[in-house]
Amino acid sequence: MVKDSDFKIVDSEVPQFYKGQVLIKIHYISIDPAIRGWMNAGTTYIPGVPIGGIMRAFSAGQIIESKHPDFKKGQFVEGLLGATSFAISDGKGLKILDLSKGSIPQYLGILGMPGMTAYFGLLERGKPKSGETVFVSGAAGVVGSTVGQIAKIKGCKVVGSAGGKDKCDYLLANGFDFVIDYKTQNIDEELKKHCPEGINVYFDNVGGETLDAALLNLARGARVVICGAMSQYNDMQNVSGPKNYMKIVVARGEMNGIIVFDFLDRYSEAINDISTWLLEGKIRTKEHIIEGIENFPSALRMLFEGKNFGKLLVKI
Amino acid sequence: MVKDSDFKIVDSEVPQFYKGQVLIKIHYISIDPAIRGWMNAGTTYIPGVPIGGIMRAFSAGQIIESKHPDFKKGQFVEGLLGATSFAISDGKGLKILDLSKGSIPQYLGILGMPGMTAYFGLLERGKPKSGETVFVSGAAGVVGSTVGQIAKIKGCKVVGSAGGKDKCDYLLANGFDFVIDYKTQNIDEELKKHCPEGINVYFDNVGGETLDAALLNLARGARVVICGAMSQYNDMQNVSGPKNYMKIVVARGEMNGIIVFDFLDRYSEAINDISTWLLEGKIRTKEHIIEGIENFPSALRMLFEGKNFGKLLVKI
Repeated sequence: MVKDSDFKIVDSEVPQFYKGQVLIKIHYISIDPAIRGWMNAGTTYIPGVPIGGIMRAFSAGQIIESKHPDFKKGQFVEGLLGATSFAISDGKGLKILDLSKGSIPQYLGILGMPGMTAYFGLLERGKPKSGETVFVSGAAGVVGSTVGQIAKIKGCKVVGSAGGKDKCDYLLANGFDFVIDYKTQNIDEELKKHCPEGINVYFDNVGGETLDAALLNLARGARVVICGAMSQYNDMQNVSGPKNYMKIVVARGEMNGIIVFDFLDRYSEAINDISTWLLEGKIRTKEHIIEGIENFPSALRMLFEGKNFGKLLVKI
Repeated sequence: MVKDSDFKIVDSEVPQFYKGQVLIKIHYISIDPAIRGWMNAGTTYIPGVPIGGIMRAFSAGQIIESKHPDFKKGQFVEGLLGATSFAISDGKGLKILDLSKGSIPQYLGILGMPGMTAYFGLLERGKPKSGETVFVSGAAGVVGSTVGQIAKIKGCKVVGSAGGKDKCDYLLANGFDFVIDYKTQNIDEELKKHCPEGINVYFDNVGGETLDAALLNLARGARVVICGAMSQYNDMQNVSGPKNYMKIVVARGEMNGIIVFDFLDRYSEAINDISTWLLEGKIRTKEHIIEGIENFPSALRMLFEGKNFGKLLVKI
C-alpha cells in the first residue's frame, strides 16, 4: 500500500527551459491505478520511475511560456507531465486541449488515458456485438463506467461490479442493467442470476476473485480483456492467478489485454466519439477532486481503498 | 491421484445388439489425460462418467458382427468406445481405420485424438509462422512430441520441456532444438537462455510453474494455447492459477485453448497430413503398451506420474 513516506514534496526553482520547449503551469494531476505500477522497480511496458525522480503521472494545465513553434502561450495541454506544479515539455506526447469538447478534468479522465483505455479495450479487444452481455468490474471507476456506458451505446446488456450501495446506485442510474456489490454479494451467484446465457465480454479491472467468478460464467466464444488488477497491485510478488483459467478453453474463449499506448495514433477518433456522446448526454462522467499537491499520496491511497467516487484528480 | 479402487473389472455377457449397431472386439484402449477429467463430477465440455458407468476412453478394435449398413464385419474401427473388451456402437463417431496409413496404436495416438489435438491446437490456435519460436511443455507425450515435430515442419525453432534425461534425449533426437528437463533445471532460466527473443507460441500441456515461466518469456504478440494441465488434474479444487497472467497484456498476446472435438469435420485433413509426414519420416512416434485390461488403473496412474515413455495404450 502506498505510504506518505514513499513521496517527498520538494520546493525548487522553476527550471530553465530552452528552444523547442514549453513551460506549463499544471492545474490538475490525474490519479490513476497505473501510477502504482510505475512505482515498482523494473520495466513492464515502460520503466519504473527512478528513486528521486518526479513521479510519473498524467497532468494538465496551461502553457505560460513557449519556445516551441507548435505551441502557443495560453494553450491548455495534457500529457505525461508528472506530479508537479510546473512542467517543461519538448512537445512530444503533449496534447492541445479543445475545451469546447470537454473540461480539463474530463481530458484527464474520459477524454484522456482512462477513457481511451475503455474505448479501445472494449471495442478493439472485447469486440462486443449488439445483444451480447458485457460484464465489467471496477465499474464505478472512470475506465469501468466508460466501458459500461459505451457497451450500452453498442446495444449490449451491461452488468457491473462495484463496492458499496452509492456506487451501485450511481451505475444503475447511468444505464447499467445490473450492478453487483462485491462487498456484500457473491459475485458468482449474481453473475449466474444476471447472465444466465453467460458473459460474452468480461472487461477486468480488478483480477482476483472477481476474475475467477467471471471465468466460471463465460459464454461460448467469450473474450476476457485484462485491463487492470486493482485487487493485486499492492502485492505484485504474490499475485493470485486465476485458478479457473481452464474455463477459457471450455468456453472456446480467449484472454487478451489492453495497453492503451498502442492506440496513440487513433486517440482523436475516440475523443470525437466520446465527446459527441458526452454532448448528446449518452455518457455521463463524474469527478472526485482533491485540493493540494501535498495530498497526492493520500489521493493515490484512496484509489486502492476504493474510497474515491468518480475520476480522482488532484487540483493544484 | 487415480486409485485402483476407483475402478472395478466387471465380467458380463456380451450384450445383445440391434439393427443399426455393430459389435466390436476391442484390441487397444488409449490412456489419455482427458480420462482424468471425465472421472470428475459435473460437466465441462462433456459430462463426467456416472458412477457405475463404463469408463469413457478412446479404444479401437475389429468389427466382429455388423447390423449397420455403413460398417462391415472385419473392419478396424476407432472411437469413444470405452475401457471395455467388447463394445457396441451405433456408428456415430465411429471411424473406419485405413491400416495402410497407420497402425491401430497410431490411430489412437498421433492419428487419433492426441494427434488431432496437436495438429489443430498448434496450427489453428497457435498459428505459428516460419522462423518463430514454439515452446511446448509435456513434450515427450504424444500431443507434445507431435506439436514439436509439426512446428519443425512449419519452419519454427522448437523448445520443449520434459522430465528426465531419456525423454529429453529422445526429443533432441527427433528434431527439437532444445529440451528443458523440468526435474533438474530452472524453466525460466532455460527459457531465457534458449528463447532470447521470447516465445511466440506456447503450447501448454502442464500448467503450474511451467505455464508461469512461459508467461515470463513471451514475445510480443505471443499466443498461449492451453491444452492441458497435467500438473493440476489430480486436485482440480485447488488449481494453482497462473500468477503471471498479466504478462499476456504486456506482451500484447492472447491466451486461448483447444477442444479437439470442435474440429471433428476436419480430422481427415489432419490424418492425411500426419500420415504423409509419418511415411516421409518427418514425424516419428513411439508407443508404450501395457498388456491386460486389469492394468487400466495403473496405466492411467503412470501417465500422471510421468512414467510412460511414448503413447500409452492398454492392449487387451
